Amino acid sequence: MENEIITLGHGSGAGLTRELISDILKPTFDLLSLEDSVQIDENIVITTDSYVVNPLFFPGGNIGKLAVTGTVNDLAMKGARPAFLMMAFIIEEGLPLKDFRKIVSSIAKAAKESQVKIVAGDTKVVEKNRGDGIFITSSGVGYLPKGMYLGTDRIKPGNKILINGSIGDHAISVINARNNLGLEPAPKSDCASLHDLVIKITETGKVNFLRDATRGGVAAIMNEVVQETGYGIIINEKNLPVKENIEAVCELLGLDPLYLANEGKLTVFASDDHEDILRIMKKQETGKDSALIGEVTDEFTGVFLRTEIGSLRPILMIDSDPLPRIC
Amino acid sequence: MENEIITLGHGSGAGLTRELISDILKPTFDLLSLEDSVQIDENIVITTDSYVVNPLFFPGGNIGKLAVTGTVNDLAMKGARPAFLMMAFIIEEGLPLKDFRKIVSSIAKAAKESQVKIVAGDTKVVEKNRGDGIFITSSGVGYLPKGMYLGTDRIKPGNKILINGSIGDHAISVINARNNLGLEPAPKSDCASLHDLVIKITETGKVNFLRDATRGGVAAIMNEVVQETGYGIIINEKNLPVKENIEAVCELLGLDPLYLANEGKLTVFASDDHEDILRIMKKQETGKDSALIGEVTDEFTGVFLRTEIGSLRPILMIDSDPLPRIC
Repeated sequence: MENEIITLGHGSGAGLTRELISDILKPTFDLLSLEDSVQIDENIVITTDSYVVNPLFFPGGNIGKLAVTGTVNDLAMKGARPAFLMMAFIIEEGLPLKDFRKIVSSIAKAAKESQVKIVAGDTKVVEKNRGDGIFITSSGVGYLPKGMYLGTDRIKPGNKILINGSIGDHAISVINARNNLGLEPAPKSDCASLHDLVIKITETGKVNFLRDATRGGVAAIMNEVVQETGYGIIINEKNLPVKENIEAVCELLGLDPLYLANEGKLTVFASDDHEDILRIMKKQETGKDSALIGEVTDEFTGVFLRTEIGSLRPILMIDSDPLPRIC
Repeated sequence: MENEIITLGHGSGAGLTRELISDILKPTFDLLSLEDSVQIDENIVITTDSYVVNPLFFPGGNIGKLAVTGTVNDLAMKGARPAFLMMAFIIEEGLPLKDFRKIVSSIAKAAKESQVKIVAGDTKVVEKNRGDGIFITSSGVGYLPKGMYLGTDRIKPGNKILINGSIGDHAISVINARNNLGLEPAPKSDCASLHDLVIKITETGKVNFLRDATRGGVAAIMNEVVQETGYGIIINEKNLPVKENIEAVCELLGLDPLYLANEGKLTVFASDDHEDILRIMKKQETGKDSALIGEVTDEFTGVFLRTEIGSLRPILMIDSDPLPRIC
């Protein structure tokens, strides 16, 4: 125990990250949970997230856009209306100023599109090889509409699980850019603010819980929900939206899209009137390919995939995301 | 211009950092100023700061304690009562878990002492030599008492400038630890939350402006105030509290304590009844060595040091802090 060290797996968002949180951070900070966003007041939600994606630029986005959309989405998942962002930069000496300008411009553009205002910031510089281009920590404040509450305690057996489009795009886009896999056309990250879509679907009052499928992918979220509710979840493989090119790369690299990080995808836990919600989702730019992918049950616990041939395969929480530094 | 890069000086908190802010961040984010803390609401102040201090542990503190006290102080400088903190960790692969535990424990202890609650967090891990042990970004939320407003626009000619104790302790403590200078006894960082002291002095209603003397030291703050107000400032060298051992090291290394970072020192701009405030400050644990160090004037602009022999020496804003990664 004395010689234990932090490994890349501790940052993957999967099992080891959760261990770090539940074994060290939660007890030391005397907290019931340590999420990246939290309600602090009758109507205020705050959130923080560090972005260390490598490479800094990838098709569909860059670390700056990601730092905005990721934090906006964290607030939106609580049903809050994102309002203010703060940006803290840790820059490695030698970063070209033109890259910094490009990143900062992307931040400004994404913030404008997400209707949030950048209000504060910080800049630190570290020596060469003590950082990696740039790391960005973005923190946000959002306002909760009166009576808005989304939580796993609202999830009930029979609830349907929806997703707003294809999975795996972000992870594969980054991996392709990082490792020069040369995929053509280059897969594009789904990196996007979901806050407009969330406003539309939460207005129905039929949404019980939302979570964005970032690090650890859809698999991690489903396992979290099962842990917190004790219910079971069945995901239907044939309904899972996965783009053909993404599926092909996954097969080649031995990756499962269910475990891959997305940056513009959320899962929706909804009551039986889910058809309404699906219709609303499909009308949104960020929800055109929305699909009903699964259901909550109280007949067993755990997460299972109903495969295309009809068998049930357990979807376990893995210790470590196979792809580090994806966000 | 095309080949410009980010240098260590851009992170020093001095002139180059300000250039980055005024040339790139402010115009791109469409802001009048980009401070590390800001009032977003009738009664709410938020703030963010990244900590990259090297080494992680130094006499008087560590990066965890610093991340709490620094952020608490940023809120306090606005007159706000610090309430909530969020902690985002970027950890270099290989950091011993026992170091992480130690840092997290310091965070918990400092938060308790500062009466703030850690409510959210994030953990990322980067590969070896892509980080440096651990970087921490802490963001905070504080509540402003009704009617509380502190700003440079409240500063008037004749205002007195007070400080709550000796300067340079933090910077020299870190430098000694980083470079194994072997100073005995090892200088201790002044790293401390000032929020109790701020509550006491702001209750008098006689405080116009507060600023903590972190990166860039007292010299940077004074120059900022002069830039924003157009007034002049005279600092009396003979009143400046500098510990003997710190002064000795500064002479040896050719450093000026006025430019050194502190982590438990604030400057107070107060009306003529400053004697009351000084008395209150001296009663606080963090203000025992408080002193009247200068005065605001409208007879000229700029910052000047009245030296012990009576001459006036201009205190200019420097481009780059001589000591990088001090916080």
